[in-house]
Amino acid sequence: MMRTRPLKVALLGCGVVGSEVARIMTTHAGDLAARIGAPVELAGVAVRRPSKVREGIDPALVTTDATALVKRGDIDVIIEVIGGIEPARTLITTAFEHGASVVSANKALLAEDGAALHAAAEKHGRDLYYEAAVAGAIPLVRPLRESLAGDKVNRVLGIVNGTTNFILDKMDTSGAGYSEALDEATALGYAEADPTADVEGFDAAAKAAILAGIAFHTRVRIGDVHREGLTEVTAADIASAKRMGCTVKLLAICERAADGKSVTARVHPAMIPLTHPLASVREAYNAVFIEAEAAGQLMFYGPGAGGAPTASAVLGDLVAVCRNLVAETTGPGESAYTQLPVSPMGEVVTRYHISLDVADKPGVLAQVATVFAEHGVSIDTVRQQSRQDGGGEASLVVVTHRAPDAALSGTVEALRKLDTVRGVASIMRVEGE
Amino acid sequence: MMRTRPLKVALLGCGVVGSEVARIMTTHAGDLAARIGAPVELAGVAVRRPSKVREGIDPALVTTDATALVKRGDIDVIIEVIGGIEPARTLITTAFEHGASVVSANKALLAEDGAALHAAAEKHGRDLYYEAAVAGAIPLVRPLRESLAGDKVNRVLGIVNGTTNFILDKMDTSGAGYSEALDEATALGYAEADPTADVEGFDAAAKAAILAGIAFHTRVRIGDVHREGLTEVTAADIASAKRMGCTVKLLAICERAADGKSVTARVHPAMIPLTHPLASVREAYNAVFIEAEAAGQLMFYGPGAGGAPTASAVLGDLVAVCRNLVAETTGPGESAYTQLPVSPMGEVVTRYHISLDVADKPGVLAQVATVFAEHGVSIDTVRQQSRQDGGGEASLVVVTHRAPDAALSGTVEALRKLDTVRGVASIMRVEGE
Repeated sequence: MMRTRPLKVALLGCGVVGSEVARIMTTHAGDLAARIGAPVELAGVAVRRPSKVREGIDPALVTTDATALVKRGDIDVIIEVIGGIEPARTLITTAFEHGASVVSANKALLAEDGAALHAAAEKHGRDLYYEAAVAGAIPLVRPLRESLAGDKVNRVLGIVNGTTNFILDKMDTSGAGYSEALDEATALGYAEADPTADVEGFDAAAKAAILAGIAFHTRVRIGDVHREGLTEVTAADIASAKRMGCTVKLLAICERAADGKSVTARVHPAMIPLTHPLASVREAYNAVFIEAEAAGQLMFYGPGAGGAPTASAVLGDLVAVCRNLVAETTGPGESAYTQLPVSPMGEVVTRYHISLDVADKPGVLAQVATVFAEHGVSIDTVRQQSRQDGGGEASLVVVTHRAPDAALSGTVEALRKLDTVRGVASIMRVEGE
Repeated sequence: MMRTRPLKVALLGCGVVGSEVARIMTTHAGDLAARIGAPVELAGVAVRRPSKVREGIDPALVTTDATALVKRGDIDVIIEVIGGIEPARTLITTAFEHGASVVSANKALLAEDGAALHAAAEKHGRDLYYEAAVAGAIPLVRPLRESLAGDKVNRVLGIVNGTTNFILDKMDTSGAGYSEALDEATALGYAEADPTADVEGFDAAAKAAILAGIAFHTRVRIGDVHREGLTEVTAADIASAKRMGCTVKLLAICERAADGKSVTARVHPAMIPLTHPLASVREAYNAVFIEAEAAGQLMFYGPGAGGAPTASAVLGDLVAVCRNLVAETTGPGESAYTQLPVSPMGEVVTRYHISLDVADKPGVLAQVATVFAEHGVSIDTVRQQSRQDGGGEASLVVVTHRAPDAALSGTVEALRKLDTVRGVASIMRVEGE
């Protein structure tokens, strides 16, 4: 029972993702219609550079006036692949006001203002879907929002940024330094000309905020996410991780506190054991672990970015939203009923790997150990090694047991003040054990 | 906006999965109500042994009359975790007739008669959900049916039976033979007293049929699935795989033909390279690769069976079905519009690893190679080795290039007839390259 009036779809943005969405909508029109129960028609494409030739897209559909497009009133679904906060936010809310549902790939906007967008969608009885905002083609939003809707998610741990994983993988396999690996990522198109959003962890933090909100049925904004990028990670850190049987990954970690009364979300580099499945995630791939009370540990792996994979996620959402329109219903909206507060990083329980340059004389280890004890931090292992250069220095590598991050960072501050500690060569958290 | 009349849920079966479903429904009632937008209430439990004490379940809800329960007319959702064809099939269709939606974990029934069940659900305007029928807690049905609904899936390749993976993992890590590994699986509760459904591949074949149908938007029944179990796999096969840098896994493989005009579905043991992510799936875990045109390669990993993981999948479906009831709609039904035929195994293109015991004399390799050539099968590598026992025999290990399975099996039949071939020590397909 195919309805005959086509559903009208407008595309905001026609870059790497948008052009792929348009291409698949055209080449797979028959399949999409059969799966939706109605034909879908590309009814408008808003772009910045109208003169650019876009293969397969009727030039008559192209406009630079995105606002007029979302106000047209005959559009059923708006696909927003512009990115950034404005004008995307205003365009999306205007689209809802004019009766359209929205599919978005905009992680920054959803992590900044997701609650307001959800509220606008609900007010106007429309859908807001955004699988493509997190980890490209890998289904994560839908599994968390629907498949695990009867379970209690306790932890989400993953590699959600392909650029930084590519850089760390290069550093790990070739021994390259950060700058050299970044240059290679840029040359191969894995890093943008301005890599800040990736390498400083903003992109991963936005994804962590979105995942934490859905996983714990609460609201987490990007500003709630503790964020450390990988620009400080050195070849020495990677080598040190290797000696421990570990590798370094930039992880997004969202956790429910043990007492269930708060959540945390953070992005930072961490050492993980080579035996952990995330350790073998290579190049620009993404992978996310979800730990739930009944389900146990689930892992989702795939390409986390790129035009076609992201378009796959957008089109999956488009089919869902169109099916809802045909059935005259909407999908699950925001679920934020737990209203759990987001605790600061200091309260997160984690482990540190600390590498110190110390004076090579008796009593130093005792002095260092006392500092740990005074901060209530228990030491797991210590490795002490005299330097070969005969400069009277030794290196001391300490791995702690689990302790609140504030106690661990307080320990490091106190260690820096010891006369016998010449320098803190590296500090990194240890995860995945 | 919580509706106040509770949704009434009846449970058919209260074994390992059912009791866990009932437990979570009770302990997490508040969360489920918040996520659904209405409270859910366990309104009846049909069991075979009513005298058994079931902790946390009101004895007044327990009945042996499952038929009366599904006919009550006030039940909103039936959860069927009995398994098997009858009485499950009649109970489910009766439930639809009496206005209930159905969540089922019954792979055998869905693979045997899914089309009729879907038709019954549609006729009565009710939902049929069955995430738990395939790979326990791992979201696969929903990702294929919804997340990838805008993409074109070309291949599904996975480990979907935990019992056989446990057995093969034991054989691989300890060098044990099949019987010994099966005994260990039985002792640890991974294998049932009658392990036929697992070790002969029936369980995996049912899952393959369900996955192929959803992935390719067509109908595939268990009878369409080529099925070989692992009872013939020997310690020598595993050792031979190791020498090739491979391991042996029981794989479920669903493929769209290169010309797009047919599909295939099969379950058999196969060698896969140790570098393939499926090679490192240990013990009773499951993992499934999905290859789609736009998304690329996705992998889903997790516990494939067990009470709590399966209950997680059941409850995710319960929440979805209840949300649909609150919204007075139904979810996506069967999508089988492509009506692609299922080709027989002979047309599947694959590779063989063949180990032959041959006479240790000149000319044998030429003779063997001629047989391959006559069947149009191209050889990738040959390894020839004289036996140490001086019995005048050598072993010849041949790995072929890709060829239709009929040509490969025809080659093996012809090889058996050669005077110089004393025996075929092992034949196994090679996948995952």
